[in-house]
Amino acid sequence: MKAKGVERVRLDYSGCLKERVGSAGLGRGDIRLGCRAAAFAMRRLRQGLDAGQYGFDAILDDRRMIAASVREGQRLARLADVLIVNGIGGSALGPLALQSAMRPQKRRLIALDNVDPEGFAAKLAGLDPKRTAVDVITKSGSTAETMANLLILLKWMERALGPRHVHHWTATTDPKKGDLLVLARRLGIPALAIPENVGGRFSVLTPVGLLPAAFLGLDVAALVDGARLMRRHCWSAPPEKNVGVLGVVLLYLLATRRQRSIQVLMPYADGLLQFADWYRQLWAESLGKRVDRRGRKVETGQTPVTSLGATDQHSQVQLYMEGPQDKVVTFLEVERFRKEVAIPKAHADLASLGYLGGRSLGELLAAEKRGTEIALTAAGRPNFTYRLPTINEHVLGQLIYLFEFQTAIAGELYGINAFDQPGVEAGKVAAFALMGRKGYEAKAAELRQAAHQPRAVV
Amino acid sequence: MKAKGVERVRLDYSGCLKERVGSAGLGRGDIRLGCRAAAFAMRRLRQGLDAGQYGFDAILDDRRMIAASVREGQRLARLADVLIVNGIGGSALGPLALQSAMRPQKRRLIALDNVDPEGFAAKLAGLDPKRTAVDVITKSGSTAETMANLLILLKWMERALGPRHVHHWTATTDPKKGDLLVLARRLGIPALAIPENVGGRFSVLTPVGLLPAAFLGLDVAALVDGARLMRRHCWSAPPEKNVGVLGVVLLYLLATRRQRSIQVLMPYADGLLQFADWYRQLWAESLGKRVDRRGRKVETGQTPVTSLGATDQHSQVQLYMEGPQDKVVTFLEVERFRKEVAIPKAHADLASLGYLGGRSLGELLAAEKRGTEIALTAAGRPNFTYRLPTINEHVLGQLIYLFEFQTAIAGELYGINAFDQPGVEAGKVAAFALMGRKGYEAKAAELRQAAHQPRAVV
Repeated sequence: MKAKGVERVRLDYSGCLKERVGSAGLGRGDIRLGCRAAAFAMRRLRQGLDAGQYGFDAILDDRRMIAASVREGQRLARLADVLIVNGIGGSALGPLALQSAMRPQKRRLIALDNVDPEGFAAKLAGLDPKRTAVDVITKSGSTAETMANLLILLKWMERALGPRHVHHWTATTDPKKGDLLVLARRLGIPALAIPENVGGRFSVLTPVGLLPAAFLGLDVAALVDGARLMRRHCWSAPPEKNVGVLGVVLLYLLATRRQRSIQVLMPYADGLLQFADWYRQLWAESLGKRVDRRGRKVETGQTPVTSLGATDQHSQVQLYMEGPQDKVVTFLEVERFRKEVAIPKAHADLASLGYLGGRSLGELLAAEKRGTEIALTAAGRPNFTYRLPTINEHVLGQLIYLFEFQTAIAGELYGINAFDQPGVEAGKVAAFALMGRKGYEAKAAELRQAAHQPRAVV
Repeated sequence: MKAKGVERVRLDYSGCLKERVGSAGLGRGDIRLGCRAAAFAMRRLRQGLDAGQYGFDAILDDRRMIAASVREGQRLARLADVLIVNGIGGSALGPLALQSAMRPQKRRLIALDNVDPEGFAAKLAGLDPKRTAVDVITKSGSTAETMANLLILLKWMERALGPRHVHHWTATTDPKKGDLLVLARRLGIPALAIPENVGGRFSVLTPVGLLPAAFLGLDVAALVDGARLMRRHCWSAPPEKNVGVLGVVLLYLLATRRQRSIQVLMPYADGLLQFADWYRQLWAESLGKRVDRRGRKVETGQTPVTSLGATDQHSQVQLYMEGPQDKVVTFLEVERFRKEVAIPKAHADLASLGYLGGRSLGELLAAEKRGTEIALTAAGRPNFTYRLPTINEHVLGQLIYLFEFQTAIAGELYGINAFDQPGVEAGKVAAFALMGRKGYEAKAAELRQAAHQPRAVV
């Protein structure tokens, strides 16, 4: 066992091979060809990174940005026990994933990542504004949900703390533009920059995730170090020994050659379910695209589904085992838990209790995972496993870079732009029009017109 | 506005019609034919219900069972503030859905629905056994995860309370067989019966869900009344005005005629995400089947995906809008929230804040939902909406029966058995063998043999 922070996440892809799962699996030759395509994809991605088009890679070397995030997180930690993360999508999923995986004891985050009035009220109930800080996070500086929550929070904090309430705030947004930046300057609230070339879903290792991590007391240096280690691995290991390349090649081949239109990401660890949710955005929003880079209609995108082991063995595995041949299951397995719980020996005369006494919950969880993997493989259902040495900041940093790298490479393999999200525009515009925002009068008139169409309601 | 409890859930299926979404949609004729098939399916289901083969319907009339569940829940509520629901799958998803939707203030459930040692420890941390009760729920009386947690909890409770700890326990299991029943009798713990003809995922309106509901102080009578109202509606309203029939016909036609292999269930209400998770088991485990009733290989099952509005507009909607044409989106919309939150007017000179001041979070959420629906419809992506008058026990009861009815009908339409789960057996057996359970020695030897196969690990 090596010291904390130097063990790498490993990939076991036995369950994807033809020799194990039959015709749903991949041959060694398929994989070799896929790796060659990935080499081209890496070259194209490298160009984009070197040209500064995409920033998710270079941020790992931005020591000033990292230090500033940590400093600001620590400043807020001195005056608060709770940090409200007022952000949605990529602005909340990263911080929540880190908190959930690391289970900090002293401080906590509350994410205002929706505008459900009941949910909002429940989240604020019992909070003491005097021991609460707020980080408003929106790249554009204008996200409707975040702006609405911001207006409510400003009043709530000011009423409790008076003018000095501004000391409890941070804004995390575009460095040059947007209403949040204007407002932060107006109120004297520090504003941290999300680099212009880093989109929301790739931003967890910018102030978006690092400030909340520092607030929680997490080891930010280890988080970034883990990401750097995985970056070295992904860009330098030969394809056939490269976790980043092999993982994405398997997914790409299974999706395009074996009709696996759904990827089930199934951690066997409660603390990683929220991490799976972070991944769900990354994979879905990056790859779900109507047109390729040349403008041809392609409608790409594997649908990511999150599932929790062993819990969802009792909910979803029936479908994964027997339903349509449209899934690949990606397991996340933890080799050493930070806590273990012994199962006492008692009532050993009862068959369903006797074999458990003297074992541990961790052993049972491992057996459940292995059992599911064996059963899926025997049923000809492709699956693979990322083995995490344990859950700590270093491992999380590795996973973050690993999945960001794979997503970017997948974009190149599909020939699409993995870094935009044109498909959410239409819904936003319609919502603005319905809310009467200035500049959307034409759309509002169009919608009023359409509202006269008869509806089918029972 | 009618009094609480007499408003029915409505279905708006405009977004599924050809005239709105083009070729991905359904014509009125398609729907009429589908309703005719559903009429046959209802007849077959009726036979199964009348023969006592399936019990999810008759339980609504079992006043003794309902009263016993309430009594036992209230007994535990007198001596505890926290009820540990020690169960997994159908034994936990129902109780959790009710708690999450109803947001009780005085008492709470903790579900031990996994065997992650870190998660287990975190859930028990800070709990006072003296103010804690335990409901062990397993139909078979032998579920590995539940039995392991049971052994740990028995020791934990006994150490704190001594022999009188048994008063804090209830068992919910098969009325006639299983190790949990034996153990309950041995220890003098009351045992409530899950009717033999009701499977885990259909059991929320048996003691499985009703006891925890009563513990939380929910209105169990309203819950059951709501289910009864929906039962009357589903079995008596003409097909073209029948929420139950139309909803399942739309899903069936979209899945089989329009290749919509994924159903996204998307509530616009934080409190209903857990309910969507309950539904996810019901739909997946019931319909994900390898063979039909005649034994022919069919590999059926639409994959249910849960998504939360407005939150996941910033994570998944890009994929739903532009990705593969393989999804139908089912919205759950709440017409009256139990709380509303006003958005104050301030900084109205800033364009992204000005239009929000003076409105409410509920209005914004409604606009976001409507905006997403409009955008999906315009993009030719089929969707429909269940409109909930509000969130209360009566409405939840309606939804529970509605979805159980639809799932059972879908089983008939697909020609499969919606009430078994043969696909989880293989994984269970492998896990038993790996844990060294008696009777699984042959499987264990086979697995030891297989473990020598080389693995592909990087």
